Parts: sequence; C-alpha cells; structure tokens
Amino acid sequence: MSPTEIDAVIFSSCSSDQYSASIIAEMLGIKPKIAQRIDNLCNSGTTAVISGYGLIASGLCKSALIVGAESRNSPGRTLGWDVTRGSFALPIYWATMYARNHMRTYGTTEEQMAMVAVKNRKNASKNPNALYRKRITVDEVMASKRITYPLKLLDCSSLCTGASAILLLSEVMSSRRVENPVYVTGIGAQTNSASLSKVMSDMNGTGTAKIAAKDAYDMAKKTPKDIDVAELHDAFSIMEIMAYEDLGFVDRGMGGRFVEKGMVATNTRGGILGCGHPLGATGISQVAEITAQLSGDAGRRQVKGCKTGLVHNLSAGGTSATIIILGVD
Amino acid sequence: MSPTEIDAVIFSSCSSDQYSASIIAEMLGIKPKIAQRIDNLCNSGTTAVISGYGLIASGLCKSALIVGAESRNSPGRTLGWDVTRGSFALPIYWATMYARNHMRTYGTTEEQMAMVAVKNRKNASKNPNALYRKRITVDEVMASKRITYPLKLLDCSSLCTGASAILLLSEVMSSRRVENPVYVTGIGAQTNSASLSKVMSDMNGTGTAKIAAKDAYDMAKKTPKDIDVAELHDAFSIMEIMAYEDLGFVDRGMGGRFVEKGMVATNTRGGILGCGHPLGATGISQVAEITAQLSGDAGRRQVKGCKTGLVHNLSAGGTSATIIILGVD
Repeated sequence: MSPTEIDAVIFSSCSSDQYSASIIAEMLGIKPKIAQRIDNLCNSGTTAVISGYGLIASGLCKSALIVGAESRNSPGRTLGWDVTRGSFALPIYWATMYARNHMRTYGTTEEQMAMVAVKNRKNASKNPNALYRKRITVDEVMASKRITYPLKLLDCSSLCTGASAILLLSEVMSSRRVENPVYVTGIGAQTNSASLSKVMSDMNGTGTAKIAAKDAYDMAKKTPKDIDVAELHDAFSIMEIMAYEDLGFVDRGMGGRFVEKGMVATNTRGGILGCGHPLGATGISQVAEITAQLSGDAGRRQVKGCKTGLVHNLSAGGTSATIIILGVD
Repeated sequence: MSPTEIDAVIFSSCSSDQYSASIIAEMLGIKPKIAQRIDNLCNSGTTAVISGYGLIASGLCKSALIVGAESRNSPGRTLGWDVTRGSFALPIYWATMYARNHMRTYGTTEEQMAMVAVKNRKNASKNPNALYRKRITVDEVMASKRITYPLKLLDCSSLCTGASAILLLSEVMSSRRVENPVYVTGIGAQTNSASLSKVMSDMNGTGTAKIAAKDAYDMAKKTPKDIDVAELHDAFSIMEIMAYEDLGFVDRGMGGRFVEKGMVATNTRGGILGCGHPLGATGISQVAEITAQLSGDAGRRQVKGCKTGLVHNLSAGGTSATIIILGVD
C-alpha cells in the first residue's frame, strides 16, 4: 500500500508537541485528508483507534494510520491535575488502594499478584519488542523492593519511551488487500470522571470497564467465554486480576485464583508489566498484539487457533475504560 | 436534553493539560462513553467536529458535545516546531508572503485588504460575544501600526482566551428534539504537510483548501453558488481574500475585488479579526455561527433566508484545511 492512499493520520500521545499528527504525516510522505492528535491519558491509544473506526465506518475515510508515541518524561506521567488525590498524585497510590481492598475483601494474596508479573514477564521474554525480556520468579517479585504495602517494584510497570502503529482499513479496502483480515467487531467505552474520588464508591471493580465490556460484547455478539486471547491493562499486577473479573472471565473476587489457572491467554506480548508503558502508544500496541495473534503472526508467542481477541485499556485508576473486540472469520 | 444523554465529549485545544476532556465531562456532570481531546493547531475545532461526525455517523454514538477552549498564552501561538521557517516562526511572516504575492500577481491593494477588516469589525459590532466590538474605517486600518509590509495591526487577528461549544446529534435524535435541525451535509479536509516550505510552491492559493472544498461540495452536492453564508479563516485580512478564490466564490486573482462587492455574507460573527483567535475554539465558533444563521437565531446579524452555509478553517499557513458545509431542509 502506498503512503498516498492513506486518508487519515491519527497520533496518540500525551506529549505537548503542537501539530504533531501533521508532522508525522509529512515525515512519512503522507498527505492525508485528516490529521489529528488525540490524548486521553493511558487510554489515548484505544481512543485513537475508536476515532479511526468512526472516520472509516462513517464513510469519511477508507484508511487510517494510527500511531502512538510517548517519551519517558511525558507530562502524562503524574496525575497532578486531580485535586481529589491530594498529594497522592502518583498512580501507585490508587493501585495500592485497589490491592489492599482486594486482599481484604476476597483474600487475594501477594503471591497471586506476583504470579501476574511472572506470567507477563515470561510472555515478554518471547517478544523482541518488549522492554523487560528477562524472566522472573514469584520469589523474586516477593523479594523486590517494597514501594507501598502490598505493592513491590516488580508488581509495577515502568514508564518508558516507545511507539507503535496500526493501519485500519475499511472492510472493502481490507478485503482487497489483506489475505486474512482481522476485523474490529466490538467497541465499548465509558468515562465516569477525571477525579479518582468520584469512582471509588465501589472499589470491588472498575465500573467503567464493566460498562464498556458489556457494550463491546453486545456489539460483537460475543460473551466472555468466546475470548481466546486478551490484552489487559496491567499497569500494576492487581489491575490484571481485577480485569479478569470486570470482563466476566471469572466471578467477582475470583481473579486471584484465575491467574493460577489461566483459562484465557492474557497479555501475550508481555503486557504493560513486560513491555513498559509509553502512555499514548500502549493502547495501540495492545491492538497490534491481538491483531498479530488473530492473524497467526505472533511468532514464538502464538496462541494456537485463536479467533476472537479483546483489548482492555484504562486511564487514571479506571476513571475511563475502553474495550475493543477483534475477530477473524 | 439531560447531560446523562451525551455519548461523547470532545475537547479541542492546543493546551498541554492532561485528561482535559474527562475533566470537562466531570465538571458538566456528563459520564460519556467517549472522551477525547483533539489538537490540530488552528484547525483543531473543525477537526474535532469531524471526529464527532465520525463517532455519530458510524453508529458508535448518538450525541457529542464538542467544546473548544484556549488561553491567550496557548503553546500553539508560535510555529517554532517548523524548522523550515527558520527564525520566522510567527504566523505574520507567512501571511506577509501571501499578501505580497497577491498584490504583485493580481494587483490586490492594501485598501482591499483593509476592507476585509472593516467588514468583519462591522459584523463583530453586532455580536455580543465578539472581542472587538468597535467599528473601524479603511483609513484607520491604513493608519494603524505597520507590522510588516504590507500588513498593519488591524489586518491581523489577535490571540485571545475564549471558548465555544456545539452539540452534535444523530439524525434520528435531532429530528425528535430540534424543531428545525441544521445538518452537516458536506465535509472535506486535507493536510499537505506541517512545514510551510512544502506548500509554498504555489503561493497563488491554498492547495489544501481547494482540495477540501471540492470534497465538501461533492459530498453535500452543492456548488459555490449555493453558499449563502460562510465563515472564513481570516487570521489575516489577506486570508479571507484568498479564501474567496479557493472556495470558488470568484476566479483566481479576483478576491480583492470580491470584497468590494460581497455577494456572499462572510464572517457574520465578525470572523477571527473581530472575535479574536482562541485557537482550539475558533473552528467550533465558526460552526456555531453558521448553525445560528441557518436556524434563524443570529439576531441582529441574521442573514435573511439563508439555507446553505460553509465553514473554512486552516492551520499554519494553510498546510491543512477543513471545509464543512451545513444546511437546512
């Protein structure tokens, strides 16, 4: 496909650079109809995919290049704009509250959280694009530096510099050019607030993710049982455990036990724990991984026979969530 | 309409604030499916309208609140990222080149440019939301401080703090709730580059606006003759003269004479020269004005019997352009 055939360039980033979608288009030799930068904090990448879907499904465009990029010192790295957090502007504080609550309410253990990190780092070891390719053990997670109680260094993802891109095509265009196209079949999104205090009335789950998942399942005409492979927002290990529950893979409170069984292949690229978290790029990397899996192009980390995949992305303690379901015929 | 019925909140701004669409949603008591901030420099507002159109026309949303806001000291105010401009990072330098070329090539006069400013300030005098409500004369423009040759202070718009918002509804939703809905009937957009040097090979027009206008006219099944009222990107008076030509209101080179005749009602709200230029808000203000005109809600500045309106917006010397056509039944 020639750059001249690309109708839209959407750039996802929390950076403060001006006119950056047009700069990227120029550097790539693309003269798109539409260039736009989108930001929505950690959820930027999936929000950009939704915007691209809208431009194409509405008939305005036939193709969209969706690019995410972030530098390690992104202005999105602290949540200082949220006055309801007081001095607790770093994301680890909300993750700590969620982890403490899950342990207290459901008996989830530190070892179960550690197992999430171990699994994702194992997956990352098979991903040449991952930031952390060295495998780790539960003992190593447990012995890593304690940041808060109960979160340790290896329960936490790391901000990093990174980029990712996908090409989204109309159904007609993809059927002509791609042998086995992967389709966006379901989209759900929900924003409950920007302030964390407004979404903490029920700490036993992420309300936004539950609403978004329902909408995405409905649109895709799928249920949690249909999901073969999923990318989950594991900025902290507890978040993956909560995602299992929010997405309906297991009943509420059973997430800690689910990681021990692992009936769904999750975070096969290594997730955020394994790949690092370049904010605006993360959501697009998630979509790229599920696309690779469903295309059979995931190399050493290929999940055999997968037909339906899901992307789960959050911003700022789950104040907003996006769920995208992908599928092959 | 209740805030709870709004499916998307799109925020248009060049500001560096994080998660700002979600902050606006929370402050307004809206829990939208989708919240996103869009930036595309001066063209941000119209780009946000296009994104909202995509979300609705694709079926993902039924309604979108599109909000633009900018502070006077916005980081979008200089074009320092464009290395091809050298030290000439302020917008007035490209406007000066366009003005000099138009005078040399087509015999456009300083007085004709001044007449654009006089007309738009006259219109602004009838707009309670305009920044500059005092009428001016051609003599006053000619005698105002010379910034470059041939541009004088009153040929130039002013950055300012400002905001605007529109509510975009699906056809079904608007038919139930709005007595005389105004429809988006045509959309055209084109980005040729971010760097000015890449679009200056033909200074006799704005290539992006010409392409975008053709696409918008085609989609709306309209011609330039059908346009009753238009908001044009008059960041500098010369830009409105060029817009007449780029949009096909007159032949190339005849824009200077068109302002003397004024067959189309242009910049009835006062344009950017009269209202000021809060970057991310401008495109939305333009759409709001055309909507008010077509609804018959424009008060003292109402254009009688108008049925079809056009919005023309540019970024960074015309490196990108958006044209939106609106209409009533």
